[in-house]
Amino acid sequence: MLPPGVFCAQDYERLAEERLSPAVFAHTAGGSGGEAALARNRSAFEAAVTTPRMLVDFDGANTRARVGGIDLSHPILLAPLAHQGLYHPRGELETAQAAAVVGAGLVCSTLSSNSLEDIAEAAGPARWFQLYLQPDWAVSLDLVRRAEAAGYQGLVLTVDAPVQTPSLRALRAGFTGEGSVAANLTAYPAPAPPPLASGESRVFGGPMRHAPRLSDIGRLKAETRLPLWIKGVLHPEDARQFLAAGADGLIVSNHGGRAFDGAPAALSALPAIREAVGDTVPVLMDGGVRSGRDVFTAIAHGADAVLVGRLQAYALAVAGALGVAHMIRLLREELELNMALAGCPDLAAIRRLGAAT
Amino acid sequence: MLPPGVFCAQDYERLAEERLSPAVFAHTAGGSGGEAALARNRSAFEAAVTTPRMLVDFDGANTRARVGGIDLSHPILLAPLAHQGLYHPRGELETAQAAAVVGAGLVCSTLSSNSLEDIAEAAGPARWFQLYLQPDWAVSLDLVRRAEAAGYQGLVLTVDAPVQTPSLRALRAGFTGEGSVAANLTAYPAPAPPPLASGESRVFGGPMRHAPRLSDIGRLKAETRLPLWIKGVLHPEDARQFLAAGADGLIVSNHGGRAFDGAPAALSALPAIREAVGDTVPVLMDGGVRSGRDVFTAIAHGADAVLVGRLQAYALAVAGALGVAHMIRLLREELELNMALAGCPDLAAIRRLGAAT
Amino acid sequence: MLPPGVFCAQDYERLAEERLSPAVFAHTAGGSGGEAALARNRSAFEAAVTTPRMLVDFDGANTRARVGGIDLSHPILLAPLAHQGLYHPRGELETAQAAAVVGAGLVCSTLSSNSLEDIAEAAGPARWFQLYLQPDWAVSLDLVRRAEAAGYQGLVLTVDAPVQTPSLRALRAGFTGEGSVAANLTAYPAPAPPPLASGESRVFGGPMRHAPRLSDIGRLKAETRLPLWIKGVLHPEDARQFLAAGADGLIVSNHGGRAFDGAPAALSALPAIREAVGDTVPVLMDGGVRSGRDVFTAIAHGADAVLVGRLQAYALAVAGALGVAHMIRLLREELELNMALAGCPDLAAIRRLGAAT
Amino acid sequence: MLPPGVFCAQDYERLAEERLSPAVFAHTAGGSGGEAALARNRSAFEAAVTTPRMLVDFDGANTRARVGGIDLSHPILLAPLAHQGLYHPRGELETAQAAAVVGAGLVCSTLSSNSLEDIAEAAGPARWFQLYLQPDWAVSLDLVRRAEAAGYQGLVLTVDAPVQTPSLRALRAGFTGEGSVAANLTAYPAPAPPPLASGESRVFGGPMRHAPRLSDIGRLKAETRLPLWIKGVLHPEDARQFLAAGADGLIVSNHGGRAFDGAPAALSALPAIREAVGDTVPVLMDGGVRSGRDVFTAIAHGADAVLVGRLQAYALAVAGALGVAHMIRLLREELELNMALAGCPDLAAIRRLGAAT
Repeated sequence: MLPPGVFCAQDYERLAEERLSPAVFAHTAGGSGGEAALARNRSAFEAAVTTPRMLVDFDGANTRARVGGIDLSHPILLAPLAHQGLYHPRGELETAQAAAVVGAGLVCSTLSSNSLEDIAEAAGPARWFQLYLQPDWAVSLDLVRRAEAAGYQGLVLTVDAPVQTPSLRALRAGFTGEGSVAANLTAYPAPAPPPLASGESRVFGGPMRHAPRLSDIGRLKAETRLPLWIKGVLHPEDARQFLAAGADGLIVSNHGGRAFDGAPAALSALPAIREAVGDTVPVLMDGGVRSGRDVFTAIAHGADAVLVGRLQAYALAVAGALGVAHMIRLLREELELNMALAGCPDLAAIRRLGAAT
Repeated sequence: MLPPGVFCAQDYERLAEERLSPAVFAHTAGGSGGEAALARNRSAFEAAVTTPRMLVDFDGANTRARVGGIDLSHPILLAPLAHQGLYHPRGELETAQAAAVVGAGLVCSTLSSNSLEDIAEAAGPARWFQLYLQPDWAVSLDLVRRAEAAGYQGLVLTVDAPVQTPSLRALRAGFTGEGSVAANLTAYPAPAPPPLASGESRVFGGPMRHAPRLSDIGRLKAETRLPLWIKGVLHPEDARQFLAAGADGLIVSNHGGRAFDGAPAALSALPAIREAVGDTVPVLMDGGVRSGRDVFTAIAHGADAVLVGRLQAYALAVAGALGVAHMIRLLREELELNMALAGCPDLAAIRRLGAAT
Repeated sequence: MLPPGVFCAQDYERLAEERLSPAVFAHTAGGSGGEAALARNRSAFEAAVTTPRMLVDFDGANTRARVGGIDLSHPILLAPLAHQGLYHPRGELETAQAAAVVGAGLVCSTLSSNSLEDIAEAAGPARWFQLYLQPDWAVSLDLVRRAEAAGYQGLVLTVDAPVQTPSLRALRAGFTGEGSVAANLTAYPAPAPPPLASGESRVFGGPMRHAPRLSDIGRLKAETRLPLWIKGVLHPEDARQFLAAGADGLIVSNHGGRAFDGAPAALSALPAIREAVGDTVPVLMDGGVRSGRDVFTAIAHGADAVLVGRLQAYALAVAGALGVAHMIRLLREELELNMALAGCPDLAAIRRLGAAT
Repeated sequence: MLPPGVFCAQDYERLAEERLSPAVFAHTAGGSGGEAALARNRSAFEAAVTTPRMLVDFDGANTRARVGGIDLSHPILLAPLAHQGLYHPRGELETAQAAAVVGAGLVCSTLSSNSLEDIAEAAGPARWFQLYLQPDWAVSLDLVRRAEAAGYQGLVLTVDAPVQTPSLRALRAGFTGEGSVAANLTAYPAPAPPPLASGESRVFGGPMRHAPRLSDIGRLKAETRLPLWIKGVLHPEDARQFLAAGADGLIVSNHGGRAFDGAPAALSALPAIREAVGDTVPVLMDGGVRSGRDVFTAIAHGADAVLVGRLQAYALAVAGALGVAHMIRLLREELELNMALAGCPDLAAIRRLGAAT
């Protein structure tokens, strides 16, 4: 049943805070370091102003988006959110079901609590698989093969989190991550931590030893015909380079404020990246989307579609598949309202209105 | 009787909050979405700075304004405020009486609690009729004919709210709008909600099907000799287009922060629109006016006059016609004080001082 | 006796709040309208940044200022503060005595609680008389003659407050001004309020009828050999005009946030005025000075000296002449510290450092 | 033992507040005047945004810094912090020991609670001696000779605090400094306070009489072969002058907000100074560094390394040498994380990323 008192998507945050343990809520809501990047994601949306047009013809108005060759009825996707078992016993299976019902694209995380195969079965056709490169290339490749076999439409290579940075808020709340199992990885041998020379950096000598690098784009492209998205792009020069190396699409993101704390808001980075890559390259964004107006704003700044992360966790925690579907539905209807009120009968009109008129 | 403790127009807000039900107050004070446009209306006024002149000659000083060919003793009009029965049993009849007494132009709402004919009788000659286009063109036309017959000086076509967006604040306070009757529309058959195809948008397939469009300007002008104002303009290109299509005057507004939440403050949009249309086209504004200094500031930014909405509701709720008249009187005297202190003996001098000196 | 716990000049504000009635404190601390100009005076000082120099030679370092041909040991003057009987039974006599002791220039208000003659007797030689033009020119002239006779060094014509605007804060606190007598004016017949035509503005038809105008500069200069300062200048074009009309010096001021509420901070207006009039015209400022760093900042922005108003009232209320002398002494020593730390051995060096380096 | 609950370097501040007396904590945390420069140091770091790069090769990644010809494994130094006996019975001996263990450069203060010789013995080789010029040149020279003899690698001449300004916060908390002995100076006769002429400034006629001046750079260089750093530079013109006069390196600083309160943030002053002096002159900075991200940001703004002051005091107060070592270790690991997440395998890459990308 839908809980009472949900008038907008963000109301799920308040309700989730009441239902989740303080540790899990802190882990979900928190960001890295001083949470500056986290805060910027929101303040950029709040500060965004768009001068609307009036008396526009709305015959045939729609929210249709095309994401990597797939037609979607609206531009709201579910971001790759790890360990959804934290929020619901059935985790990603609920999310996937919701995505199918409301026509939302789904990006399945490498670190999902259910296997990518089970998730694929519950999901609609618009699904992608998010890939964290594994220390062992053979494991990465096996994940790719499994994603192909399970009918995912593309790979989303996350590049902005080669090391995990703990949320201080989560640490203080006692979050340990205990009990979270990455179902996709249980079949593989656990990678041995690399031996550290005395005095060697735990960061540079540890996870960074196997961090993804530019050549991995070509290496992956050589192995699969699935389109390859790069997630975590903020610098326009990176955007150009990654496309030149073979990437098929970009996701502008600062990892929801959970990675480099000095980063700009994803929204702020978007216009320069759109300008760098031109109008036809698919560019998505995530980070800070909490309302249909935010979706509108992201598209005005150059995105083809957005992904929602935290809202997904909150709605899942509060009401499972029904909650997630409701949350997407609220976002979509708010988007439609904003389009109606700003004189934009489709996403192309929002784009033309632009980020600063 | 005038309540004690009213030293400035905005004091009526505090008193109204004490007298109105929380639901009606929330409905009145609130805005759409995250209330960003609502907040911008105020912060734009608060941030506005004008460098005053001193030792100016004040012989013949006055606050006279000319609005669409009508001479007014001051530039403060009453905005079209719907459902005034929420604030006073006699609703718009009180407001109209106050307007007549203090020489304030009155804009009667399509959604008034009293009929436009009754309001016209109570009002002074400076009255306009605000028109929401109805799904049935014949009904719209009948409203125009009635406004002509009742001696209104012009039509004010609202274009920025083709759909109503609920105020989250009002929803949370339990506001339902129940009991509000639009007296002007009771004579007409209730429009049938358009049938929605399965999965069709309630927004695009609903109210947007009959939303006003550019061609309606010419269509209206062909039917009436009343001057036609367009209310809800924010984009300079729209301003030019609407004039080209036949509009006689413009009202710069973001609907008091109750429509597109991503919109700029009305005050912020004003200078570019004044520049786009030149000095002679009548341009009014509303949104955020709470004091005589705000009236001064709006005129410095390019307005010929301002309309007040929320203050009208508050004063009406607190003290009926007497309250509204007192509120206008306070605004006018504050305006005069500001003119005296800034070296501006008339509105033209304020305009010359400009928005940023 | 000096009260304990005064570590800086602004500490007198806290202590004064404890000793004065809420109504008198509100009247003193408050500003006009929404107190925007009042707030700007402070925020402009707080935001001001100056890049200091180091390793500068301090031989012969001093704080000497030259104000209208008078040599002062430091650039801190006492602003014309009306009705000092509100703060101390002996009012301006205490202030004047303090000014003499610490070598601070004194500007006596037209609206002083003691007669200008008595104040002159208590004061040091560096004294000026602030003039509000009176409805009757003969009265104004008599005030000029008395100031000449009492040995004032110049006249300060206030031009930014042709009407008094009440402080809402003071009104709410019940301040009435009752009991304040303007000792300088008791000898003259009270001016009859001008008759208002029906519906005529109380502002334009009242005090503005006798408001000072540009021609009054020449008119005054024709009557007296005293140097004439204009107080309340904010616009560079006004500055040029007033000098051309015969003024000898300017005081940049927004009347301490007590007049036009839309005005810029006095500090913000200062650089453009200094640039407009050149380096040799005497330019003072007041509004927002609360510390020796503020004095430093004002000089860096182009002032030759500053005047302090509210601090004067607070110190007078707390400890009479001793308090005022102590407050000036604290400001001066803070100024010296700031000069020492910023590499400025005299005021000219501060000026060279500039407002934005 | 390390205290529980320290997840980041700044956690030591909270813990120190619990352990230190309010007076000592206020003295440590406070700044001069209105604490504007203190606040700017932090807000500049908080506002700094850097657009990161992704998919960068991290082979050979390291945090190595070269400071005045000395190779350090990381760019975090301990600032010259006076009177460390306030924080720990063994004071600087603990700090020096920590510095040696974690390879942090140490700058010993003239006003240390232990003698520079004892500190040198506890410290590692990367140590510098901070010099306050003494009223008697022979004393200054003796300090230089002692620093040479004790194996310090260079002199750090502090130029931004020729007079001490009290922290108002500390004064209000009752801080007197009583019991703080400057161990390095006890051997010398206490300088007689210079006689003040009547009415002479206690500032200009007191400490400023012996304040360091430009010629002291050459005078010191003539006496010692130790490299000479100038600490407290904010103006690019000063930077050029000091190098021309013989300085070997610069430390950009506003004395942690404890000197000129009108100063810009050290971080804000850094880019112009780096640009003025070119890429090869050693430039350090201090002021506001509280995290590894701040270290990253300072380097992106042009610093070769940073010094930490307050964090040093807090960690020392909480856990002695172990606390200081832990705090440095936390900063270093946060720096490494930020480098990993921003695509910067060494400090040169951070510099190339720049202050505003």
